Amino acid sequence: MRKQAQGYFESLQDRLCDRLASVDGQATFHEDRWSYQPGEGPGTGGGRTRVLAGGACFEKAGVNISALEGQLSERLAEKMNAIHRDFFATGISIVIHPENPWVPTTHANLRYLELVDGDGNLQRAWFGGGADLTPYYPDEDSARQFHRALKQACDGYQPDAYARFKEQCDRYFYLSHRNEARGVGGIFYDYLQDDLDQVFDFSQRVGEAFLDVYPSIVEKLRGQPWTPEQRDWQLHRRGRYVEFNLVHDRGTLFGLETKGRTESILMSLPPEVRWSYDYQPKPGTPEATLLEWVREPREWV
Amino acid sequence: MRKQAQGYFESLQDRLCDRLASVDGQATFHEDRWSYQPGEGPGTGGGRTRVLAGGACFEKAGVNISALEGQLSERLAEKMNAIHRDFFATGISIVIHPENPWVPTTHANLRYLELVDGDGNLQRAWFGGGADLTPYYPDEDSARQFHRALKQACDGYQPDAYARFKEQCDRYFYLSHRNEARGVGGIFYDYLQDDLDQVFDFSQRVGEAFLDVYPSIVEKLRGQPWTPEQRDWQLHRRGRYVEFNLVHDRGTLFGLETKGRTESILMSLPPEVRWSYDYQPKPGTPEATLLEWVREPREWV
Repeated sequence: MRKQAQGYFESLQDRLCDRLASVDGQATFHEDRWSYQPGEGPGTGGGRTRVLAGGACFEKAGVNISALEGQLSERLAEKMNAIHRDFFATGISIVIHPENPWVPTTHANLRYLELVDGDGNLQRAWFGGGADLTPYYPDEDSARQFHRALKQACDGYQPDAYARFKEQCDRYFYLSHRNEARGVGGIFYDYLQDDLDQVFDFSQRVGEAFLDVYPSIVEKLRGQPWTPEQRDWQLHRRGRYVEFNLVHDRGTLFGLETKGRTESILMSLPPEVRWSYDYQPKPGTPEATLLEWVREPREWV
Repeated sequence: MRKQAQGYFESLQDRLCDRLASVDGQATFHEDRWSYQPGEGPGTGGGRTRVLAGGACFEKAGVNISALEGQLSERLAEKMNAIHRDFFATGISIVIHPENPWVPTTHANLRYLELVDGDGNLQRAWFGGGADLTPYYPDEDSARQFHRALKQACDGYQPDAYARFKEQCDRYFYLSHRNEARGVGGIFYDYLQDDLDQVFDFSQRVGEAFLDVYPSIVEKLRGQPWTPEQRDWQLHRRGRYVEFNLVHDRGTLFGLETKGRTESILMSLPPEVRWSYDYQPKPGTPEATLLEWVREPREWV
């Protein structure tokens, strides 16, 4: 499964980068291949970090894959109820920040993990992942389109999968210190292990759905003209994105704590951000509607 | 002591805001008086948040005071070895982000805390505080001036105070995920309780030293012309400031966790910030020198 999962993430990275670069039409992805020196990171292995910056459409887009072998810290092993601390982890991580405030930011992540005993025998293996959408302006069509695509991927796995994973997403991408969701959500799942082939199949469906739906949302909205005031709103909302990733996101904090590759982890941060004291939209504006959208979970399908 | 400490913080807020507004010459402080409704915050009480934004010199300056009575959570009481959980806390918190990249950002904080038993008798009381300087460009004179002023305040307290508190500052304001200090440091102290009058006297010296030295550094450097490239460097370095405050700063995380007033806590975040993947200065430039400065603690006095 290691090779299969890793192979799929590589292929998804290639195809997604091609698709995004073609949508952008101007900028291309810059690739950093990296690997840990012994004793340097949380394990041995490496990855391919790909970043597109300053495009015609995408201000910053990062699509990373990595594969690592190592040993969990005692603290983490306890947290995961793991008897065996040797692990293998591979995954793809995607964060896209468009320039146009009408085009939503998105994030997706797929990962495969293994715990192995001292003799190298597999003890436990699972998939996790998800995708979520963070609009700056309320556009019902694209929120629905995004959720519909993910629901379709879920429906091919288990009849109640979408409802469960949608709720987990709403719970996870939540800024408790703001009483706000990060955006309109999507799906989030972890520790799927019952039938690995089936779960791998599901994870691929999620990857393919994302590859298809996000670029099509971008293409629909990118032509929308925007004002400096709308850009200002977007830059302030991006502040919330930073707050979520640095204060709440377990993946980011885990990566930083375990001395992961900082530049690859923090490629998720937006290229330009603003914070103003007590920044509030006027009632009755589209900005105020967006705030209503993130105050409580909504049904999109 | 409650009234004395609170009175001093109020006076320092007034005088510092006056001084900063007069240095700025254009913008003034906007004041928000706030108080918690019962059951809303981590205790009863409130504060005065003052923010100056978009000035001729200061892009964002926040000077907050607050005074709260409440009960520590069990987790926190354990962490502080506190038998009694009723507390009183008052303090002043200052963060200043100048527009000109040649003028350093600064932060200072002074606080007084009490733990009280069920009958309202004082069980333990202490002062904490400190100040640190975060330049974007290396200017030895102002780093030395800042440290000299704080050393003078320390010397009036205990002969080895500066050395101890300077080291604690270097240790505290450190971004482990970047292997970088936040800036050139200053002093940091906590749990000073041996002789409260003496410690209060020391905290006032720190306040007065800060009130004097930072505006004078600003006045010296504010005339320095700057380029868009230097501004870009400053905005990227401000990213480190955000990373420190949201990932490492105990005060910020404690405030957010305990449902403190988010807008007052996060007024420390810079008004405008950039992140680019793998942003690095060219060797031999002043930007590269700054990075050398933050790699290892330095002696400034």
